[in-house]
Amino acid sequence: MKSYKAMSKDELLKEKESLEKEYSDLKSLNLSLNMMRGNPAPNQLAMSNDLFEGLGAKTDFKAKDGTDCRNYGIPAGIPEARELFAEILGTDASNVFIGNSSSLNLMFDTLMRACAFGEIDSEKPWFQVEGRKWLCPVPGYDRHFKVTKQLGFELIPVPMTDEGPDIDVIEELVKDPTVLGMWLVPVYSNPDGITTSEAVCKRLASMKTAAKDFRIFWDNAYCVHHLYADEAKQEKVPDILSLCAEAGNPNRVYEFASTSKVSFAGSGLACFATNKDNFEAAMKVIGIQTIGANKINQLAHSVMFPNLAAIKEQMMKHAEILRPKFEKTIEILDNELTGLDIATWHKPNGGFFISVNVFPGTAKATVAMCKDLGVALTPAGATYPDGNDPQDSNIRFAPSFPSIENIEKSVKVFTVCAKLAAVNKILEA
Amino acid sequence: MKSYKAMSKDELLKEKESLEKEYSDLKSLNLSLNMMRGNPAPNQLAMSNDLFEGLGAKTDFKAKDGTDCRNYGIPAGIPEARELFAEILGTDASNVFIGNSSSLNLMFDTLMRACAFGEIDSEKPWFQVEGRKWLCPVPGYDRHFKVTKQLGFELIPVPMTDEGPDIDVIEELVKDPTVLGMWLVPVYSNPDGITTSEAVCKRLASMKTAAKDFRIFWDNAYCVHHLYADEAKQEKVPDILSLCAEAGNPNRVYEFASTSKVSFAGSGLACFATNKDNFEAAMKVIGIQTIGANKINQLAHSVMFPNLAAIKEQMMKHAEILRPKFEKTIEILDNELTGLDIATWHKPNGGFFISVNVFPGTAKATVAMCKDLGVALTPAGATYPDGNDPQDSNIRFAPSFPSIENIEKSVKVFTVCAKLAAVNKILEA
Repeated sequence: MKSYKAMSKDELLKEKESLEKEYSDLKSLNLSLNMMRGNPAPNQLAMSNDLFEGLGAKTDFKAKDGTDCRNYGIPAGIPEARELFAEILGTDASNVFIGNSSSLNLMFDTLMRACAFGEIDSEKPWFQVEGRKWLCPVPGYDRHFKVTKQLGFELIPVPMTDEGPDIDVIEELVKDPTVLGMWLVPVYSNPDGITTSEAVCKRLASMKTAAKDFRIFWDNAYCVHHLYADEAKQEKVPDILSLCAEAGNPNRVYEFASTSKVSFAGSGLACFATNKDNFEAAMKVIGIQTIGANKINQLAHSVMFPNLAAIKEQMMKHAEILRPKFEKTIEILDNELTGLDIATWHKPNGGFFISVNVFPGTAKATVAMCKDLGVALTPAGATYPDGNDPQDSNIRFAPSFPSIENIEKSVKVFTVCAKLAAVNKILEA
Repeated sequence: MKSYKAMSKDELLKEKESLEKEYSDLKSLNLSLNMMRGNPAPNQLAMSNDLFEGLGAKTDFKAKDGTDCRNYGIPAGIPEARELFAEILGTDASNVFIGNSSSLNLMFDTLMRACAFGEIDSEKPWFQVEGRKWLCPVPGYDRHFKVTKQLGFELIPVPMTDEGPDIDVIEELVKDPTVLGMWLVPVYSNPDGITTSEAVCKRLASMKTAAKDFRIFWDNAYCVHHLYADEAKQEKVPDILSLCAEAGNPNRVYEFASTSKVSFAGSGLACFATNKDNFEAAMKVIGIQTIGANKINQLAHSVMFPNLAAIKEQMMKHAEILRPKFEKTIEILDNELTGLDIATWHKPNGGFFISVNVFPGTAKATVAMCKDLGVALTPAGATYPDGNDPQDSNIRFAPSFPSIENIEKSVKVFTVCAKLAAVNKILEA
């Protein structure tokens, strides 16, 4: 297909006419489709329907250390759940805290502890750091940004590259002592599906930061969420806790993960992992904050997933459902947009999202047109701090929940809208 | 029995000798008993063993509003769980937020929100209120006190009376604008088992406080935890949210409850209830803090407990297990200590604890002697802010977990130790 940028005005007007015809045909279909929610599909959830069946008969409700999971006790989590996440994350079980179902909740609480009480290497609680800042790789996860916003941080965008967040930019920014930390989804990032390279991981672990209590919130949400059985396509990162320890920055990282997209999104297990000193400091507060997380849920997960191998097996079943949806999305983008010079996208090997950068200045218009045609997309800008994408370009797709048929319709609608918005924009110029 | 206070020195020495003989006989039994943990007994927990069995078949994992409880969504909780707690608390379901299993966690987070962001009627976040204070009815729940301590409050003890916390004292204390709130377990208080009278409830709701953002943390942990089927012995309090609204202080209360001692202590449901304005402000933060609590657990509880009647039925089964334990404890206290003029206690009609005030200055010694005889009790002082009981008198019993036989031994040990400690103290004087 010919690049829109290379088209003459006449060619563009002709293209516009053709697209408007398509638009009006699509409008007459009265679609009502949704690509905005990063929710697992019902057939993915159904894989875990037996999570609790026969749990008492199988376990007598006892954890392997004899703890009665029905009763109070062991607030850091039952040993087998801690060991499971340790294996998933490549760390030691003693570093792992098991919470309830929401890893976001653990991130919020971890940051809140730092704000209210300070980190172990802080001079003062972060609430007392005037002009505190937080680095936000963009495009990124809107709910991360909202957490740091709520806690009074100025959000500093850092561009994503093909090998993770732009580390040259980060190394400059952390020379500011009010830059206290950063978000990162290191594997299959939300929304790009980019995995941070080993080289960038090492530089993040070893970089010199002006704030001696600088923290990386390493949201390893998708570390086992591969779309392909081929190991060459299974992206991974090194154990960041070890990298930081080796680099002399042992307290630098809180790592997070969950089974939200392994078992049940609304009632899985979430965890954080950090080094011994951070862990002990956290437990002093957590031990006051709560009697403990739901241990029956921990036990049920530990029975269904006794080890990483069981997780991998389940994830390959998820992949069989998700892969065709991702591939269909990419296929339509490829077919409809390649060569037009108006959009770019990354083909992810895992995770839950696909991110498209449409023609600058047209993301909002594209999402609005999609809405007009009955296709709900994540609001344009949502992947940027404060909902403000300065390029007005990035749009996130969540292809997990809809059926393939609906994805096909939705992405087709999207491409027509993206093209029409681009033509309009170019004609305006 | 003759009052120790009325005994001559010779009589006391003779009593001491006799008690020391008993002490040494008990020592030779090499006991290892525990009355310190407020944990439900295994046969209480077993009542709920089927909580999750067949849940999918019964519900298809759908809440009554059609929400798939396996997936993300409705962070305030599923409607039927909100309705259940509304019925338990005598309020409207729209006021009820359902969290995970720990009500303490909801209390901590609620107070943390006030500290970090302020209440809706605050001039500033409570972290910025210098010398902030919190009223603590004593004896009380150590974990309450630790929450307010952790968040930087000075803890002001308020004596408990037979009709709840001393309201005259409270009305004076709240004239101080840095007194921002108070704890209360209004029904079957921990550890006394005292229920706050309607008159005191009304004064708490209507009293004038210098802090216009004063809050009562109304921990209604034991509102359905009656020991007797006889309704005359089922103690209750009015709906405090209505009382506060009627008194023109609609924002005054956060109420908390849980099923920790209804279903599973380690994995029940917890909730808070508050008025519309507080609720909406809370949800703004909670909606950023978490994706949501475990809805499968909410659904399972809603199936097992479709209404308050089902809860009451379960609680009567608990009462059949707990009542003999409470009665045995009281019986031994009555038999061994009545008339000695060295100890007082309240006979509770519900709740989870019994509190004994031993001879002033002997609680620590008594607990230490019990430990020496192999009986673990809650540390003396634990029921006071900062672990400091100025009278060194209060000791908490948790008779729920041990068997009747072990309670019998433990309380017998306790009475011998309490008597010996009192004799020693009187002889010292």
